[in-house]
Amino acid sequence: MKLTVYLAGEIHTDWREEIRSAVGDLDVTFTGPVTDHAASDDCGAIILGSEEKKFWHDRKGAGLNAIRTRKAIADADVIVVRFGDKYRQWNAAFDAGQAVALGKSLVVMHGPDHAHALKEVDAAAQAVCETPRQVAEILRYVLKGDVPA
Amino acid sequence: MKLTVYLAGEIHTDWREEIRSAVGDLDVTFTGPVTDHAASDDCGAIILGSEEKKFWHDRKGAGLNAIRTRKAIADADVIVVRFGDKYRQWNAAFDAGQAVALGKSLVVMHGPDHAHALKEVDAAAQAVCETPRQVAEILRYVLKGDVPA
Amino acid sequence: MKLTVYLAGEIHTDWREEIRSAVGDLDVTFTGPVTDHAASDDCGAIILGSEEKKFWHDRKGAGLNAIRTRKAIADADVIVVRFGDKYRQWNAAFDAGQAVALGKSLVVMHGPDHAHALKEVDAAAQAVCETPRQVAEILRYVLKGDVPA
Amino acid sequence: MKLTVYLAGEIHTDWREEIRSAVGDLDVTFTGPVTDHAASDDCGAIILGSEEKKFWHDRKGAGLNAIRTRKAIADADVIVVRFGDKYRQWNAAFDAGQAVALGKSLVVMHGPDHAHALKEVDAAAQAVCETPRQVAEILRYVLKGDVPA
Amino acid sequence: MKLTVYLAGEIHTDWREEIRSAVGDLDVTFTGPVTDHAASDDCGAIILGSEEKKFWHDRKGAGLNAIRTRKAIADADVIVVRFGDKYRQWNAAFDAGQAVALGKSLVVMHGPDHAHALKEVDAAAQAVCETPRQVAEILRYVLKGDVPA
Amino acid sequence: MKLTVYLAGEIHTDWREEIRSAVGDLDVTFTGPVTDHAASDDCGAIILGSEEKKFWHDRKGAGLNAIRTRKAIADADVIVVRFGDKYRQWNAAFDAGQAVALGKSLVVMHGPDHAHALKEVDAAAQAVCETPRQVAEILRYVLKGDVPA
Amino acid sequence: MKLTVYLAGEIHTDWREEIRSAVGDLDVTFTGPVTDHAASDDCGAIILGSEEKKFWHDRKGAGLNAIRTRKAIADADVIVVRFGDKYRQWNAAFDAGQAVALGKSLVVMHGPDHAHALKEVDAAAQAVCETPRQVAEILRYVLKGDVPA
Amino acid sequence: MKLTVYLAGEIHTDWREEIRSAVGDLDVTFTGPVTDHAASDDCGAIILGSEEKKFWHDRKGAGLNAIRTRKAIADADVIVVRFGDKYRQWNAAFDAGQAVALGKSLVVMHGPDHAHALKEVDAAAQAVCETPRQVAEILRYVLKGDVPA
Repeated sequence: MKLTVYLAGEIHTDWREEIRSAVGDLDVTFTGPVTDHAASDDCGAIILGSEEKKFWHDRKGAGLNAIRTRKAIADADVIVVRFGDKYRQWNAAFDAGQAVALGKSLVVMHGPDHAHALKEVDAAAQAVCETPRQVAEILRYVLKGDVPA
Repeated sequence: MKLTVYLAGEIHTDWREEIRSAVGDLDVTFTGPVTDHAASDDCGAIILGSEEKKFWHDRKGAGLNAIRTRKAIADADVIVVRFGDKYRQWNAAFDAGQAVALGKSLVVMHGPDHAHALKEVDAAAQAVCETPRQVAEILRYVLKGDVPA
Repeated sequence: MKLTVYLAGEIHTDWREEIRSAVGDLDVTFTGPVTDHAASDDCGAIILGSEEKKFWHDRKGAGLNAIRTRKAIADADVIVVRFGDKYRQWNAAFDAGQAVALGKSLVVMHGPDHAHALKEVDAAAQAVCETPRQVAEILRYVLKGDVPA
Repeated sequence: MKLTVYLAGEIHTDWREEIRSAVGDLDVTFTGPVTDHAASDDCGAIILGSEEKKFWHDRKGAGLNAIRTRKAIADADVIVVRFGDKYRQWNAAFDAGQAVALGKSLVVMHGPDHAHALKEVDAAAQAVCETPRQVAEILRYVLKGDVPA
Repeated sequence: MKLTVYLAGEIHTDWREEIRSAVGDLDVTFTGPVTDHAASDDCGAIILGSEEKKFWHDRKGAGLNAIRTRKAIADADVIVVRFGDKYRQWNAAFDAGQAVALGKSLVVMHGPDHAHALKEVDAAAQAVCETPRQVAEILRYVLKGDVPA
Repeated sequence: MKLTVYLAGEIHTDWREEIRSAVGDLDVTFTGPVTDHAASDDCGAIILGSEEKKFWHDRKGAGLNAIRTRKAIADADVIVVRFGDKYRQWNAAFDAGQAVALGKSLVVMHGPDHAHALKEVDAAAQAVCETPRQVAEILRYVLKGDVPA
Repeated sequence: MKLTVYLAGEIHTDWREEIRSAVGDLDVTFTGPVTDHAASDDCGAIILGSEEKKFWHDRKGAGLNAIRTRKAIADADVIVVRFGDKYRQWNAAFDAGQAVALGKSLVVMHGPDHAHALKEVDAAAQAVCETPRQVAEILRYVLKGDVPA
Repeated sequence: MKLTVYLAGEIHTDWREEIRSAVGDLDVTFTGPVTDHAASDDCGAIILGSEEKKFWHDRKGAGLNAIRTRKAIADADVIVVRFGDKYRQWNAAFDAGQAVALGKSLVVMHGPDHAHALKEVDAAAQAVCETPRQVAEILRYVLKGDVPA
C-alpha cells in the first residue's frame, strides 16, 4: 500500500517540510498548493492579464490555483489540513469539505485553542493532532502498522 | 421550478430572517443549522451523556449537528454561505466545500474586507454578494427571471 | 410516467411556446433558461454591482444564469437543444454536453444545413428532428406510446 | 504531480503543436481528437460501410470519434477548448460541457470577439486566455508554481 | 414504503397485466416499454422521417424507445425481466444489465428450460421465478412482510 | 425538513416501537426489515419453491429480504443500528457498512459491554447511544433543534 | 493513449484471436470471460462443492465468473460484444447493459440477420460491425487516426 | 488482469498467510487491516494522546484504522471476509457492507455453523467458502481460468 497525501492550509511555516522529513522513506507522495505566496496571489494577473480591481485580480489567480487543488484533492487518499493562528484559512476548510465529500480521509492539525471553533471539521476527521511529527506517525502506522516506541 | 436553499454560516445575526422576508412568496424552501447556540454546543452531552473533556463534549454535539447538515446539504440546490467579522466560521467554509464537491450552486456573502481571504471560495461560487437583499434578488431572478427595477 | 424537459438554446424565437402548445395536456414539466435577453445579460451587474469591463459584466450574469441552468439540467429527464442560424449558441452545445454526461436523454433540433457541423452532438442524441411539432410527438410517444395518425 | 490535458476544438490550425512545444519537458500528457479532417469525417463509412445519405455517413464517423473523445475526456485532468473564427465548433462546446459535468478543470482559449457569445462557458472555466503560450504558462504554474519572468 | 417496478422484456403476452392484477392495491407503480409492437418498431420513422434502409429505420425507433427506457429504469426500485421462448430478447437482458449496474434490484422470470442460458443473469438477481403470480407475491412480501397462506 | 430513518438490526424486542412512540408527531418516516422472524426466514422457499438444503432455503429468503433492505437504505437519511446480546447480527453491521458507503448518517445503539467490539462501527457513526429514547431525542434535535429539558 | 477492451459474448469461435492478431502491436489490452466452456460451467461446483440441483451448480459457477466479469468491465474503456447464431447469449447483452450504464463505449458485432432483434443494443453503441477485422480497424482508428487504405 | 484483494476480518489466526502461500505467483496484491492486535487497539492513544475513558481510547484507534481500511477497500477489486467462532467481528461485516455498496466483489469464508446467521451477507457474495485453499482456487480461476485437477 502507498498513500497520496494532500497537505492543505497554512503556507507561511515549514510544517510541510517537517512532515516530509519525518516520514523518511515511507511510500508516500505529498502534494499541496503552491507555497510561493506572491506567485499564488499574482499568477492569474501575470499570465492572463492584469486587472484594475483587486477582486478580479484575485479571481484570476484563484482560478489557476483551483486547477492544481482540484487535481491534487482528486488524487489524494488522505488530506491533512493545518489551521494556524495567523490567517483565517477559509480555503483550507473549504478544501477539507471537498475532500470529505469525495470520500477522502481527513487529518486535522491545530492547537487546543482552536478546538471549539473547529469542532465540526474535527468530527468529520479520522484524526485530530497538533504536530507534524504526529502526522508522520499516523502515516507510518497506516502504512506499516508500527506505533512509536 | 422551485429551490431548496441551505443557509450556512454565522448564527449570531438575523441575516437568515432578512433573506426569508425579502424573498416573499417565492417557491423556496430554506434550511440551515440549528441557530440556538447553546443547544448547538451542548446537544450531544445532554442527549448522549456528559463528558469531562471539552473536546469530547464538542465532538458529541458536532456529530448530531452533522446529521442535520449532511441531510440539508444533500437536499439543497443552492448553498448560501455568510462570512462575518466575528468568528472564524471554518465550518461554514467546510460546508461550502462539501456543497461544491456535490455539485450544488454556491452563493457567498461577505464584506469587501474579506475578499482576499475568501478568493478561493469566491472563485468556486456562482455569485458573490454582500447583503441578504441581494441573495433574495438572486433567488428571484433564478426562479422568475425578474431583475430589480 | 411524467417527464421533466429542459429546453436549451435559442431564445429569440417562440419555439418553446410551440412545443408547449403542441404537447397539450401531457404530463410534462418544461424548464429552460431565462428568455428575456436583456435580463439574462444584465442580471449580474444589476444585482451584484456594475462592472466597467464587459468581460466581468458578462461573468456576473453568467454566474446567475448557471444557478438556474444547473438546477434545471439536474432535474431534467430529457434535454431538447435547438440550434438556429443566427447565433453561435455555444452555450446550448455546452448544456447538451453536461446533460449527456449526467445521463439525460438528448433531443437535438436543427435544420439540414447544420447536420454536418452538429454530427458529434447528433451522435450522442436519442433523436434528431427539425420542428417543435416533432418534439411534441416524441414526448407523446415516450409517455403514451402513441404515434401520429 | 503530472497532468493529462485534452485539447478540444479547432483542428485546422497548429495551436496544439504550439502548446506542446511551449510546455517543453513538463510532465504533461496531451490528448485530442483525430486532426486529420478527412479521416475524421470518413472513418465510419470506410470501416463500417458506405452510406448514401450524408447524415448516416456522418453518424458512423461521429460514433468512432466518440470512442476516442469519451476515453480522452474521462482520462483528462484539464480540458483546453479553443474557439476560432471559422467554424461553429459546437462539438468543442459539447466536449467542454461533458468535461465540466465530470469535474474536470476547464481552460477556454478565444479572442475577445467571442467573449460575449462564450460567457456561459467562460463562467464555468478556471481560466480564459487567448494564446497557446498562455496555456503553456498555466500548465507550468499548475505543475511547478512558476510564473513567467 | 412504496415501489416503482419496471417490467422489461416480452411484449407479446399479457404477463404485465397478470402481475398488475395480482398485486391488487399494493403501493406499486409499474412502468414498462411501449407494448404496441408496430408503434415500437415504426415510431422513429413516423415521427422523424422515413428511411430506405431497415437498419436506420430501426435506429430511429430504438432511439425514441431508449428515452422511455432510460427514464423508467432510472426511476425504478426493482426491475422484473421476463424471458420467453419466442424471441431472443437481447434488449431485455440489456435492460437488466443497465439496471444492475445502477444498483436496482432484479427479479428474473423464466421457465426451467432457460435456466442454464440465463445463469449469469440469474446470479445477479435477488429472485428467480416462473410466474406473474410469484412476482406479485414477491412485491407483497417486500412491501408488507406477508407470505402466501 | 423531514427524515427517513431505517431501523436496522435486532428483531426480537420492541425497540422500534419504543422509538416510534417516543418521536410522537415529528416528521419522520421509519422503515425497517420484515420483523416477522418466520416469514423473514421462509419467504423465499414459500414463494419461490422449497429447497432441501438449508443453505439454499436461506439464500432464497435472503434475496427477497435484500430487495426490501436495498430500497430502504437507498431512501434513508439516517440509519439506526441496534446491537443486542443475543444474536450475532452480522447483517445489521453489514447494513451499516452499506449505509455509510452511500453517505447516510449512522446512529449506533448498544450497551457498554459491546463498545470495544463495535469501535470501528462507532467511529463511523454520528452518534452512539444506548436507548430508544435517546434515538428519539436525537431525531427531535436534528429536526427541531430542541434538547430535552 | 492506450485502450483496455473487454471482448464479451460467444466463446465457441476464435473471433477473439482474430481481433488480437489483427490489431498487431497497437497499445491495447484485451480482457474477456473464461473461454474454456467446461471450466466456466463447472468451476463453482469444483471449487465450492458439488450440488445435486443443476440450478445451484450453475449459480456457484456464475458467481465466480461474475468476479472476473465485473473486474474486467470496470477496467474496460471499450466493450466489444459479439452475437452469433448458435446461442441465446443473454449474458453478452447483460454485460453490454452494464458497460453502457457505467459509461463505457460499446461496439456490437453481428450479422445482418440479427439487426432487428438487436436494434436497442445497437442504438446504444458507438459502432455496429460484422467482422473481427472491422473491430481491429476501429481500434486502430481510435488510437492512431489511421483509416484502412 | 491482476487483482487487488482485501482480506477483512479475523486477525487471530494465520488464514491470510495460508491464502498468500496458496496463491503462489498469481498476480494478486493482498491488503488487510493491521494484524498486530495491541497496535491496532492502542495506536490512537499512543500517537494522538492517551484518554482516561476506554471509549475515547478506542475511538482514536478506530479513526487511524479507518484511514487504512478506507484506502484498502477503495483500491480492492475483491474483498474476502472471514468469520470465525471467537469474536463478534461486526467490523468485518461492516467492511463487507461498504465493499458491496462500492461495487466490489465479495467472497465470504465461514464454517457451516454460521451459515444461517450470515445468510444476508452470503446472498450479497459472489462466493461462499470454508477454507483459505478455496479462496486461492477462486483467485486462480478468476485470473487464469484454471480449475483444480
